[in-house]
Formats: sequence, structure tokens, C-alpha cells
Amino acid sequence: MTTLGEKATRQHTRDVNLRLVLRLIYELGAVSRADLARLTNLTRTTVSDVVGELIERGLVIETGLATGGGIGRTPMLLSVAEWSRPVAAISVNADSVEGALVSLRGNVGRRISRSIQGQTGADALNTLQETLDELIQTANQPLLGIGVTTPGLINASSGMIVRAVGLEWADLPLGQLLHERYGLPVKVVNDSQCLALAEHLFGEWRGVANLVVLKIGKGVGAGIVLNGQLYAGEGFGAGEIGHLAFTANGLLCKCGNRGCLETVLGSDALLHQARTAIAANPNSILAAYASDLSLGRIAEGAAMGDPVAQHVITTAAAATGAAVATIISLLSVRHVLITGRITAFGETFAELVRREVAQRALPALVRDTEIRLAPAPTITPLIGAAAPVLTGELGLIRLHRREEHVDA
Amino acid sequence: MTTLGEKATRQHTRDVNLRLVLRLIYELGAVSRADLARLTNLTRTTVSDVVGELIERGLVIETGLATGGGIGRTPMLLSVAEWSRPVAAISVNADSVEGALVSLRGNVGRRISRSIQGQTGADALNTLQETLDELIQTANQPLLGIGVTTPGLINASSGMIVRAVGLEWADLPLGQLLHERYGLPVKVVNDSQCLALAEHLFGEWRGVANLVVLKIGKGVGAGIVLNGQLYAGEGFGAGEIGHLAFTANGLLCKCGNRGCLETVLGSDALLHQARTAIAANPNSILAAYASDLSLGRIAEGAAMGDPVAQHVITTAAAATGAAVATIISLLSVRHVLITGRITAFGETFAELVRREVAQRALPALVRDTEIRLAPAPTITPLIGAAAPVLTGELGLIRLHRREEHVDA
Repeated sequence: MTTLGEKATRQHTRDVNLRLVLRLIYELGAVSRADLARLTNLTRTTVSDVVGELIERGLVIETGLATGGGIGRTPMLLSVAEWSRPVAAISVNADSVEGALVSLRGNVGRRISRSIQGQTGADALNTLQETLDELIQTANQPLLGIGVTTPGLINASSGMIVRAVGLEWADLPLGQLLHERYGLPVKVVNDSQCLALAEHLFGEWRGVANLVVLKIGKGVGAGIVLNGQLYAGEGFGAGEIGHLAFTANGLLCKCGNRGCLETVLGSDALLHQARTAIAANPNSILAAYASDLSLGRIAEGAAMGDPVAQHVITTAAAATGAAVATIISLLSVRHVLITGRITAFGETFAELVRREVAQRALPALVRDTEIRLAPAPTITPLIGAAAPVLTGELGLIRLHRREEHVDA
Repeated sequence: MTTLGEKATRQHTRDVNLRLVLRLIYELGAVSRADLARLTNLTRTTVSDVVGELIERGLVIETGLATGGGIGRTPMLLSVAEWSRPVAAISVNADSVEGALVSLRGNVGRRISRSIQGQTGADALNTLQETLDELIQTANQPLLGIGVTTPGLINASSGMIVRAVGLEWADLPLGQLLHERYGLPVKVVNDSQCLALAEHLFGEWRGVANLVVLKIGKGVGAGIVLNGQLYAGEGFGAGEIGHLAFTANGLLCKCGNRGCLETVLGSDALLHQARTAIAANPNSILAAYASDLSLGRIAEGAAMGDPVAQHVITTAAAATGAAVATIISLLSVRHVLITGRITAFGETFAELVRREVAQRALPALVRDTEIRLAPAPTITPLIGAAAPVLTGELGLIRLHRREEHVDA
């Protein structure tokens, strides 16, 4: 008699084997069934069964006979069918909805983009769905699933957006809506959290077990990877420091509180600070760009010695340093990556941040910590959006992206 | 032929069984070998072997025959020999070294205490060792090990105190020193981290998988339990927020930086603030206690409506609220316990802290979070000191302490 427990155990063993074999095929690029049996210590029959299922599911293909020789039959090589089951990845930021198909190896195919400038609530949701419609139409293969990343507090297990302040979404069951509309597995995850996951899987620090990605764009947030896993916290809001109060009696924030870090360090706040300073110092080099100001222009101005521009960058570095010092003191991580629009301020800014951190946290903690700026611009948000689908649907702990860029 | 891998696997299986059986005996209080076999699905022979080893190691005793009846032999009941292998637990705080033997069930036996007021460096270390000498002499049974908890940045895997600012210890290999002196297993762990572990194992929130204990005494620090495990971070400094800068251009701290949270919120800082305010307001009720001021006196003064006392408490609540808001925003935990001398400020203070947190973090995160004051005074630091030894040496994930207090 087979008990329910035994059945569950057998199904679990099968899943474990499936993931083990798939991961090996990923990592080795091209491999025979015999090699897989040798490497996994599974029987040939089990390997053949598992490979059969992977081929049936379209995840693995036979790519040809092994060259080179030996006695006996030349074995058939197996590879991951990189584009056989792409992920429809959507990254929502303050200005636009970005979409792309992402391969099983985390490569980004054709990209599309729609503006959501000035849109919030239902309008922004409509644009998201239109972008997804268009993206899904371009797919030539069945999709593995849909991955969406947006700012805000998101219950990643249910796909519910609890609160996205900038987009004015509250208690929006986005995962459920998209699942009903497209009939595919859907993952909705906070943008900073996705960036940290993408960094851990594919970035310069890939494989580093503990890291924090601090995103400073229109919004501010951190994504945290601990012990090789995305840490979202019990309330799924780990890293939601954009709405942590930073200054007493500060500006009113959209979240309802005052002086949130976003009201000081968000890109709109920085531009506002610069415009105010230009108005008071019309001789500033930046005055010429008053109508077309950007963080890049401020960086250029600072490099030319403009005190207004330098002051904006110094102030931003102080606030960034305070945030990084907090992250290091509370989490004791040794890798902090700063990403988002603020990276336009460049290495001068990064150095100011490092100095600020040294004055704001225990020296013994700071001395072992690396603080870097992410190279911009980047496709990382789209890879980040796909990552939870890839890891969730395939059970892959680490995806190894090939270096070349492959178009769908 | 037995390979090394097989041998390791067999040893691992034996350890797993040992811990499983020991944990069941703990939890059930008194249990027979037959019951253990039934509950674990292990063979009777395996259970007998494992129980034999536990008895030989003095961890388990046969406590008598089961009463009540049935057919056949009456089974022998097994119990944990609670005081058979006590832990020598030492808790170092700013004023004293506290010591006690702690039972396998986390009960605290006879306590001893030595003052280290005014002592730092080698003097404080000497007092620690004298306390330990005296404690170990009182033990009638072989010890399971030594557990030490002190403030500071501690590498818990090597027992190295990297930096304990108040005690002026730096790169002190305390674990190694004590191991060489006493020939016992030694665990040295940060005090706030131990408090969080003790809270998770034995406290009111025992079993809660994610919690933070914020200790505010002479020093300030947090201990973090995530997913049921103490989270110390890559640099072992997780929760070291006492030396996180809190005010710009604040007071010089012993750590070398300025405006650290400890210089605002540590008990010495609070007393200093009160004394300064009393000097400026000689009509304050507190003026009568100027030479014998304590946080308890300040609480009494506030309850009697004294504005000086109320101001000190309000200021402390603002800083505490900022720290708690940071913890919630970064970690998204739902249980925060405040402990240490500041609990003398009582429930009025706690309510002010909750209000401050609500204004300083995203409402959607705050609404699900419980913030409590720990009941003081407490033996928790000593249980905390013993906890890493108990979990490390016995592999117990959760220790169930009986409610009664047992003396050694």
C-alpha cells in the first residue's frame, strides 16, 4: 500500500532530481545522459526519465552527437533550449513601463517601452496591461510565466500590491488580475528586491551570499539578499527605507508622513533642491539648464567647479551615507551596491558616500565593507523582473547567463 | 568498502537521530523507549543505541517505571537530567559581571556577581575570569561548556571580541583564552544578539520566527532573529546600531565618531541630559534627586507631572522611535521588544515610542507591528549567555523551559 506520505516523498524526490539535472545541463552547456548519471549518482533509467520530461516540457533539447571518440555509441548531447520558454518581464518605474522577453538563461530579447508619465491608479495599470499584451504577442514560443516588478510594498506570495505610493496603488491584487487575464504563472515583486536578486544571480557580485542593493531614483528603496536568498521580511517590506523619516519636520510625503528619505534623496527632490539653489545663485553654471536640468547636468556642473552643483551632490552623499551606514550597522553585510538615477553623480559622489559612512558607523564594521555604484544604464530591472519566475518555476538557485547578448 | 562520504553520512544520521530523540525526551518530559520508537519511526534497536549514548553522556536518566497498566513489561521512563551538565553562563554588562549555572532546560541556578565599575581592558578581563573561577568551583557536575555574553562586535565563530567600545577591548581572543584556561567548549556572543536568542527560545514571544530585541542600557544594540535563527551578519555585527550616527555634530563617542545613538539614548546620556535640565530648572521635582538620579526617578517625576522629567522621556522616545522605525523599514519584522534600563520609563514611554514609529515609517508596515517593553528585572541575559552553548552543544533548536525555578 502506498501512503499519501510516500507519494508526496516520491513526487518531491522527482522534483529534486528534475532540478538537479536541469541545473547541471545549464551549467555544463552541453552534456550527455551518461555524464549526467555519473555526475548525479542517479541511475541511467532515472536520468533518462528526467531528461525525457525536460525535453517534453521544452526546456531541454538534443543538440547533436558528441565529437571526439571512444569505443561504442557516440552519445547525444543535451542543452537548455534557451528561448523555448521565455519569461514576459515587465519593469514599472516612475516614468515608464518597460517590457522584454527574457530567456531561460536570463538574456534579454526585444524590448518595448510605454510612458506612464503623469499616470497613476487605473491609468498606469491599463498601460501595464497594454504593454504586456504587446509583449506576449511578440512571443513565438509558449511562455514560462509573467514577471512584474514595481516600486512599493508588495506581498510577493499573493502578488498583492499593498501600497505603491508613487503610482497611488493600494491593495491592488495585480498578480491575480494578470493570472486571470493571461492564464500564466505570475510573480509580482518589489523593484529594489528584484534588483538585489538580479545582482546576486547575474551581477558583478554574483554568488556573493549577502548583499544590499540601494536604489535611488525617483523613489528610494533597498533590496536585501541574505544567505544567498532574497530577504523580503515577514511583512514583505524589507528595504522599504524610502518612507523612513530622515529629517524632523521635513516636507510632506505622498505616504502621509513628513521628511521621508525620498523627500530628501529622490531624484525629484534633488532637482528641486538644485532649482531652489539656482534661483538664489543665478551665476551658477547650472542656470543655463534651469528648464532642462538633470542629475547628469548637475554632475557636469560639479566637475566644472560650480558650488551650487557641488552642494547638491554633497548633500545627497550625506543622506546616502546615512542610509548605507544604517544598512551596514543593522545587517552587517559587506557588499552594498548603489543603483538608480543617482549613479549619474559618478565616482566623486561614491567617494563622498564612503567617507560619510566611515563617520557614521562603527569603524570595525565599515572597514570590511565595499560600497560601489552600479554601472548605468542597465537592463538589470528586466532581468530582475524575470528572476523570480525563473527561480520559482524552474527551482534554479543560480542561473548562469552566457556573456553574449541573444535576441529573441 | 566504506567510503569517507558514507562514513560522514552515517555519522550525520547518528547525530540527527541523537538530537531528534533528545528533543523528544525534552518536550515530553518522561517517555519510554517504545514511545520514542513509535514517535520517530526509528527501529527499537536504533532508539536503544541512541538512548544508551545519551545516558552515557549524562544527558538523560531513567526516572522509574511507568504507572498504569497494560499487558507485558512495564516500560522504563526516560527524562532529561536537567542539572547533569550545566552551562557556566557569564553576562558582562557596563557595571558588573554576572554569573550563574544554567541547566539543560535553561533554568538559572545560584547567581554570583562582581562589580567592574570603573574597570576596562585587562582589569575587566581579570574580574571576568575570577567570576568564572568561582562559578566553576560551585559546580557539582561536569559542565557542558561556558557561555559568555558581552557588549561589542564579536566574531561568534572564533570567540574574538573585535571591538567592545565601553570595555575598551579590541581584538581580544576571549573564546580562545577561556578555552585554554578551562578546557571546555566556549561560546562568546554579543549581548543584544543573546537576548534575542533567549527571547526566541524562552520569552513571551518564544517560537516567533522573526523578532528584534532592542537593548537600551548604558549601551544600545539590537539582536535579530530571522527565520527562527539568530542573524549575526557576515561581519557578526548585525544590530550594532549603538554606534550608528544619530545627530549631526553630536557628542564625541568613545568609538571615535560623533553623535552615535548611544551618546543620545544610552542611560548615561539620558542622566546627563536630565542633570543639565535640572541645573537650568532648579524648581524641577528631580532637583531633590540630583545626586542620586536614576531612570526610575525620572519616570516617577514624569508621572507627577514634572516637565523636566517629561521632556527627557519624550526625547528618549523620539530617538527610540527612530531606531525602531529603521528596524521595521529595513527588516519588515512584526515583533520588536525593547529591553534594558530604559524599560524603567514604563508604558507611557512605550506609547510615545509607538506614536513616533507611526510617524516615521510606512503606515502599511507599522500597522502589523507589535512593539513591547520587556518586563524588568530579568535573568534573561544569563539565559542568553547559556543559549548558544545549549543550542551549539546539544543541537537543540528550541529548548522548553519548565515554568518553575530550579536551584542548582
